[in-house]
Amino acid sequence: MEIRYPNGKTYNLQKDREKIKKKNYQYGNRGMTLEDDLNESNKYYLANNIAVIHKKPTPIQIVQVDYPSRSQAVITEAYFKTPSTTDYNGVYRGKYIDFEAKETKSLTSLPLKNFHEHQIRHTEAILSCGGIGFVIIRFSKTEEVFFLEGKHLLQFWHRMESGGRKSISKNEIMQFGYRIPLGIQPRIDYIRIIDSLYYGE
Amino acid sequence: MEIRYPNGKTYNLQKDREKIKKKNYQYGNRGMTLEDDLNESNKYYLANNIAVIHKKPTPIQIVQVDYPSRSQAVITEAYFKTPSTTDYNGVYRGKYIDFEAKETKSLTSLPLKNFHEHQIRHTEAILSCGGIGFVIIRFSKTEEVFFLEGKHLLQFWHRMESGGRKSISKNEIMQFGYRIPLGIQPRIDYIRIIDSLYYGE
Repeated sequence: MEIRYPNGKTYNLQKDREKIKKKNYQYGNRGMTLEDDLNESNKYYLANNIAVIHKKPTPIQIVQVDYPSRSQAVITEAYFKTPSTTDYNGVYRGKYIDFEAKETKSLTSLPLKNFHEHQIRHTEAILSCGGIGFVIIRFSKTEEVFFLEGKHLLQFWHRMESGGRKSISKNEIMQFGYRIPLGIQPRIDYIRIIDSLYYGE
Repeated sequence: MEIRYPNGKTYNLQKDREKIKKKNYQYGNRGMTLEDDLNESNKYYLANNIAVIHKKPTPIQIVQVDYPSRSQAVITEAYFKTPSTTDYNGVYRGKYIDFEAKETKSLTSLPLKNFHEHQIRHTEAILSCGGIGFVIIRFSKTEEVFFLEGKHLLQFWHRMESGGRKSISKNEIMQFGYRIPLGIQPRIDYIRIIDSLYYGE
């Protein structure tokens, strides 16, 4: 027996999945960045009381502020500061969550120059205090997104420090990391990876 | 037998403690803010691998950026945005820690207008996801610092919403909160309060 939608169209799971995939892919083409997708996912987690994760504001060194009217302050001279932490953090199931998001146009590897020394030190500190630290990596040309645990990021960083390669190959990311399937709500469901890694769900 | 310092001066614990106390008090008078003290405390926790807690950068809406030279970007027009979270967060024993710091010159109460609606909503979300959320309150005239759990902050906020008083009295803060003794290293040892509240230590 055929299953039909209320509008009479035949229900076809495989086809629908492909449609969703295609729609998702178009999102990518419409210029959604990894940051956009993560912000949308974090909004979904917050609205559904699942997790509270925010992107940190960019740190700015303010030099001059003018007050053209009593009600408004205008910053007229300021500079970008190097951040001392990673970009995203928050709480899930009481645990501290901390990650950096990196996008690359390369098809074969993620160059380690995408990371600052202080982000690596921060990840080390987070892990040693029992936090859940990781990286979300997007290969923008293929729209593939991966979850790589902080401990592996540190290993690849240390390999570079010892004179080894200056990037993490895509093969290594596939071997040590986890592919995050793209969805609609949330778009990048990294919490599901945490469930499976830390809670065996 | 008298105990002496290497420089020959008599060792006097009581007197030295008073000196330290006095020095601390002078710090206050020299204009150390609650934020300075918390930043110093957080540096101590980080350096000693106890906790990783950072103050979030102030969120800024950047409108105009100039590039007078290739190496440097100057922000020439920007505005302060209302933050959507509290000021401090991080990790201790794997748990998510989140707090706001408030200072008042009042001797008798902390006015609730010191909080934004969104900070209250954020605290609610944090608690419902199992995070440890609280406020650190300093009465600047008496140099007293208190730790008040998020659940109590919410109670006092709801009281105001139901038409009750628009502040938390100092008596209430003393009754429901915990006094944080001021020290040298760290200056404001709020982690010790967390140890006693959540770990019975």
